[in-house]
Amino acid sequence: MSLNTFGHLFRVTTWGESHGPAIGCVVDGCPPGVPLSEADLQPWLDRRKPGQSRFVTQRQEADQVRILSGVYQGVTTGTPISLMIENTDQRSKDYSNIAEAFRPGHADISYHLKYGVRDPRGGGRSSARETASRVAAGGVARAVLAAVAPEVRISGYMVQLGKLAIDRSRFDAAEIERNPFWCPDAVAAEAWAAHLDQLRKDHNSVGAVVEVVAEGVPAGLGAPLYGKLDQDLAGAMMSINAVKGVEIGAGFAAAGLTGVENADEMEMGPQGLRFGSNHAGGILGGISTGQAVVCRFAVKPTSSILTPRQSVNLAGEAVEVVTKGRHDPCVGIRAVPVGEAMMACVILDHWLLDRGQTGAQRGQLGRPA
Amino acid sequence: MSLNTFGHLFRVTTWGESHGPAIGCVVDGCPPGVPLSEADLQPWLDRRKPGQSRFVTQRQEADQVRILSGVYQGVTTGTPISLMIENTDQRSKDYSNIAEAFRPGHADISYHLKYGVRDPRGGGRSSARETASRVAAGGVARAVLAAVAPEVRISGYMVQLGKLAIDRSRFDAAEIERNPFWCPDAVAAEAWAAHLDQLRKDHNSVGAVVEVVAEGVPAGLGAPLYGKLDQDLAGAMMSINAVKGVEIGAGFAAAGLTGVENADEMEMGPQGLRFGSNHAGGILGGISTGQAVVCRFAVKPTSSILTPRQSVNLAGEAVEVVTKGRHDPCVGIRAVPVGEAMMACVILDHWLLDRGQTGAQRGQLGRPA
Amino acid sequence: MSLNTFGHLFRVTTWGESHGPAIGCVVDGCPPGVPLSEADLQPWLDRRKPGQSRFVTQRQEADQVRILSGVYQGVTTGTPISLMIENTDQRSKDYSNIAEAFRPGHADISYHLKYGVRDPRGGGRSSARETASRVAAGGVARAVLAAVAPEVRISGYMVQLGKLAIDRSRFDAAEIERNPFWCPDAVAAEAWAAHLDQLRKDHNSVGAVVEVVAEGVPAGLGAPLYGKLDQDLAGAMMSINAVKGVEIGAGFAAAGLTGVENADEMEMGPQGLRFGSNHAGGILGGISTGQAVVCRFAVKPTSSILTPRQSVNLAGEAVEVVTKGRHDPCVGIRAVPVGEAMMACVILDHWLLDRGQTGAQRGQLGRPA
Amino acid sequence: MSLNTFGHLFRVTTWGESHGPAIGCVVDGCPPGVPLSEADLQPWLDRRKPGQSRFVTQRQEADQVRILSGVYQGVTTGTPISLMIENTDQRSKDYSNIAEAFRPGHADISYHLKYGVRDPRGGGRSSARETASRVAAGGVARAVLAAVAPEVRISGYMVQLGKLAIDRSRFDAAEIERNPFWCPDAVAAEAWAAHLDQLRKDHNSVGAVVEVVAEGVPAGLGAPLYGKLDQDLAGAMMSINAVKGVEIGAGFAAAGLTGVENADEMEMGPQGLRFGSNHAGGILGGISTGQAVVCRFAVKPTSSILTPRQSVNLAGEAVEVVTKGRHDPCVGIRAVPVGEAMMACVILDHWLLDRGQTGAQRGQLGRPA
Repeated sequence: MSLNTFGHLFRVTTWGESHGPAIGCVVDGCPPGVPLSEADLQPWLDRRKPGQSRFVTQRQEADQVRILSGVYQGVTTGTPISLMIENTDQRSKDYSNIAEAFRPGHADISYHLKYGVRDPRGGGRSSARETASRVAAGGVARAVLAAVAPEVRISGYMVQLGKLAIDRSRFDAAEIERNPFWCPDAVAAEAWAAHLDQLRKDHNSVGAVVEVVAEGVPAGLGAPLYGKLDQDLAGAMMSINAVKGVEIGAGFAAAGLTGVENADEMEMGPQGLRFGSNHAGGILGGISTGQAVVCRFAVKPTSSILTPRQSVNLAGEAVEVVTKGRHDPCVGIRAVPVGEAMMACVILDHWLLDRGQTGAQRGQLGRPA
Repeated sequence: MSLNTFGHLFRVTTWGESHGPAIGCVVDGCPPGVPLSEADLQPWLDRRKPGQSRFVTQRQEADQVRILSGVYQGVTTGTPISLMIENTDQRSKDYSNIAEAFRPGHADISYHLKYGVRDPRGGGRSSARETASRVAAGGVARAVLAAVAPEVRISGYMVQLGKLAIDRSRFDAAEIERNPFWCPDAVAAEAWAAHLDQLRKDHNSVGAVVEVVAEGVPAGLGAPLYGKLDQDLAGAMMSINAVKGVEIGAGFAAAGLTGVENADEMEMGPQGLRFGSNHAGGILGGISTGQAVVCRFAVKPTSSILTPRQSVNLAGEAVEVVTKGRHDPCVGIRAVPVGEAMMACVILDHWLLDRGQTGAQRGQLGRPA
Repeated sequence: MSLNTFGHLFRVTTWGESHGPAIGCVVDGCPPGVPLSEADLQPWLDRRKPGQSRFVTQRQEADQVRILSGVYQGVTTGTPISLMIENTDQRSKDYSNIAEAFRPGHADISYHLKYGVRDPRGGGRSSARETASRVAAGGVARAVLAAVAPEVRISGYMVQLGKLAIDRSRFDAAEIERNPFWCPDAVAAEAWAAHLDQLRKDHNSVGAVVEVVAEGVPAGLGAPLYGKLDQDLAGAMMSINAVKGVEIGAGFAAAGLTGVENADEMEMGPQGLRFGSNHAGGILGGISTGQAVVCRFAVKPTSSILTPRQSVNLAGEAVEVVTKGRHDPCVGIRAVPVGEAMMACVILDHWLLDRGQTGAQRGQLGRPA
Repeated sequence: MSLNTFGHLFRVTTWGESHGPAIGCVVDGCPPGVPLSEADLQPWLDRRKPGQSRFVTQRQEADQVRILSGVYQGVTTGTPISLMIENTDQRSKDYSNIAEAFRPGHADISYHLKYGVRDPRGGGRSSARETASRVAAGGVARAVLAAVAPEVRISGYMVQLGKLAIDRSRFDAAEIERNPFWCPDAVAAEAWAAHLDQLRKDHNSVGAVVEVVAEGVPAGLGAPLYGKLDQDLAGAMMSINAVKGVEIGAGFAAAGLTGVENADEMEMGPQGLRFGSNHAGGILGGISTGQAVVCRFAVKPTSSILTPRQSVNLAGEAVEVVTKGRHDPCVGIRAVPVGEAMMACVILDHWLLDRGQTGAQRGQLGRPA
């Protein structure tokens, strides 16, 4: 039963609406004795924060995270960590018309049909603002990983904006932090900027594909069958607002491969087991292999656009909907730090779960020296 | 905590290995008073059964399902339904070499690294044989849906084999049951047969894409945020053996769409709310809208092939692996009934969950007459 | 996996330490459309609030509860309800010595042994202050019950203080609110006051027994086997600070009864099924029968006392511990509203769960007219 | 959501009815590499088996347990362990009258009211026969504990039959296996035999109190707040058929103690921390202290008796019920191995959970040498 909670042992429960007094989450199951402060979490929130370029929503939120429990004298105590972020720049009047009419492609209508009542201000619970809580929780997960599995490194970036994909031959990790798109291809980033400027002028929006990679993940994380690492990653990424598809390793391209092509051949290298390729995306049978865990997800275009669309209102009448307010023309951009946060939470959760069940003692290859 | 269980309220726990005495599952949370017999479940198992064409494994399993509990005088009692399928055609000697060497692209190696010990016969727990239990559980879910939500209709089929996709303009639902590929395009089915025959001669295998559609799903199923309907579908499909990607509605193609294109416009029709398109795949904000729920997943090529591949063995030595035994050249084919079963379980689970939380009373559009 | 969460469908996650900035909880799974405001919750918190008589801790806390999410325009939205209570009267200096030495009979030592680190101020996470969050969550549960099952009435009271039990023949429900002990026997209440005054002079404390009764609970709540109503009540009550025993109906006295005595005979009355007695405490086989649900729990004496006790400190040295600070001489008193809150949460949780699984359609006795 | 499952990480799902073809359970989350065979489990089942003295039901069941999965070449593989026990001595005709009339004090009526339908043969799902599955699961838990925490020793025994309690001064652990009551007091055992013989002649039954002790439990197991060790023990014991009360350590007697009396004073002994008494029953704040974990539970008298009792039938008519069939005159006797099994499962579950969250590194007292 996890209406608003994810995770097995490292569990995150989020709460809050876009225009309520605050949003936040409770992080439970955190190991004790891990150094943690608000200053450790804030940089992750700052990466996701709105208003940092002309390509994202102009809402101005400080996104200051407060730790309300679970940390004493700078270390985690093993008890629940309550994190709260106050909402400060709500402009609810912008949404007065949305309360009555349903934006096509938006959760307005499904919330209404399910609950009969909803907070329409800024999208309420369905707003991507909720993802700030995920990023805060991901910051906790990263702090724990730094303590228990420091070899794990998580990196997210955009690989496609609209129909414009990066050129993998130009992939440069150093570029990721240099442009407003978390784009590892400097040439693509320029094309994306021009494309997105045009879309904004056209009162339109666009989708994107985000890739998140976790390197240094130890072999043995994941638990078949239904606690698979890829299953939980798929669920975690699909739970992010606007995500419509998730793939691991070769993903949908694997459908077009033969078994000969897809086989990631193995050999023993100086550091142990080594793979000749990584079509598997670091996961076989739901369990990590020690290779990099590679996950991609597709983000649909923002549904809140200035171009009029046909819809209905509460009274069941036909209406034309135009969404004012401050919206991301490509929500994929700010989904990058969110995807990283979900990866961090899932990896840590399975790390703890595996330590619980197996004691994290690994099967050997060859005889110990 | 769901190592080998899935579902919130309608929960399925599976057990068993490919060459153990039996496999099975326990279905918990089933509503009482639903007519159910072994004869209701067997047809679904027969659809997944091996040995039904030259394109699937030649293992001969009767796949006779037995109901051991939870049904009395032909109706469910609300208590756990234990389902068991005996394994009858194990040929474990075929796998003697696999116990020592690791097939590239197979869960052999990850199980070994995690557990240190595993049942190598027929792939043990990681074998696709486990999916018979899912199909049995899906049969229970279908029986319940027939009682509580008879308007729900679930249909699965293959839309791509290797690089050969169907032509949507030739889509004919009646074709699905007429060819060994569950292919809705008769022309594509012929091309697939030729392609797969060649691959088998080449000691090779290939991937596929499966689509599962649920029509008649009431609006309001799903629970943000982390009990989203699409999140649970993504997890459920990704948990199927060999699946590497999942998408909902437009899926990855949504990344290439603009907001204007992607908006599923709404109007009131004679039967109530009506959508002009279904890029959303029937789910907005994690909650069903009343449109058809559309899910696709990518299946990688079978890793057990007769072409030699480089690998290592338990002793850490380099070896060449050739997999004999009886394997599906395209596991995507038999994944079709499995995908349907998972869809049935997820839809029913959320139907029950929604009834629990909201009483299944829907928000209105317009004033009741 | 529920480290800091209880409930199946109506789930409560609490967080916070006694002397941190705040405590609170997230209530998930709440039905939508239920009228709810802070004013609905505050009276329950006021009943539990410290400082209301000389028999409870003199800590002065306003215990003002704030609703941070999940309520819009005065009704629940079905999304998580975040409740926060700020801590205002911490006097952490009182506890400086406790940080180093372990109080006998207190969770200080077990937290230290498990986590290696803990917040010692006011007992940190193990403080009974956490129960304010339970009372707030119980207030939400009561508001929902008032909407969906208004016939449910929950009442708690003390039936024993130290060795002094009430006389059941003097039971008067109207007395419960008239004395500082929630005691239904006015004579006993006087004796308790005298006894407790003496204990306070003696720098001592004492235990108690609390009874909580839920009338009007519909038949059919609870789910064997391991979602039994009595099982969940037992867990819920045992989770309250200082509780050492829980019983249902006749409880431990049932051990001394014969089958003839213990049988609650049945007959059909004008309102339907009627029982001649209620040894079962309203629960048979883990499922409610329609009779009053009766639960009792034993609370141990406060471990924080002014009488010196032998103990050890962090350095492993022998020390004498005297606990200053402001403590309840009988924590059983303030456990009454807490027990009521847990009863409300458990009953509602099972009400929702039953509606989900069975649709709350009851088996009939006799033929419908 | 745990209708028929208990445990966090070591999870047990039971299934089956008294007179169905079989009963059983799935044990999930078991560590890999633990030696386990049917021969390891059978002795525990033999202890619970019916028909072993004139004081228990004369039903003859071999209670042969089969391992259907999760064990390979004599060791656990970390995958689900499916255990099955065939029912062989059903005499369903004995129950033909029970299908129509409701036994007072029995789950017949509550199952009917909840589900509308039930398997009445032998009590169906509500039969104590289900506890054989618990004992089998407990056998798995014991095997794992023997591997990971061999210092844990679990022992159960009866301390009261009807109103006849043991004399603690005559407590002799060696006596427990010498009489049909698991009674540690040889004198009391004789009195119980006479008392029970008389009750059987009188067509009556009687209740009992069982105590289960786990010695050698490491400090640090349990997780506040709502994964408390005592909370989970309370739930686990209360879930056993006919149990009406559970207490830890001093239990209800703690209500009558003062804080001075109840304080378990501490000192450092040669083996580390040592307590002067154990009123706490080995648990403080929900976390084990390293002392013996002491739990007691009260079992009500068997409701199936030969003395006529007033009741109603399906048609809502008044009837007199006399229960033939083969029943335990004191179900408390066979509850002893069941209580031990639940203790083993709960302890192991928390052992694994603690290893997962904290790595089982304990807080120190004093400086390491």
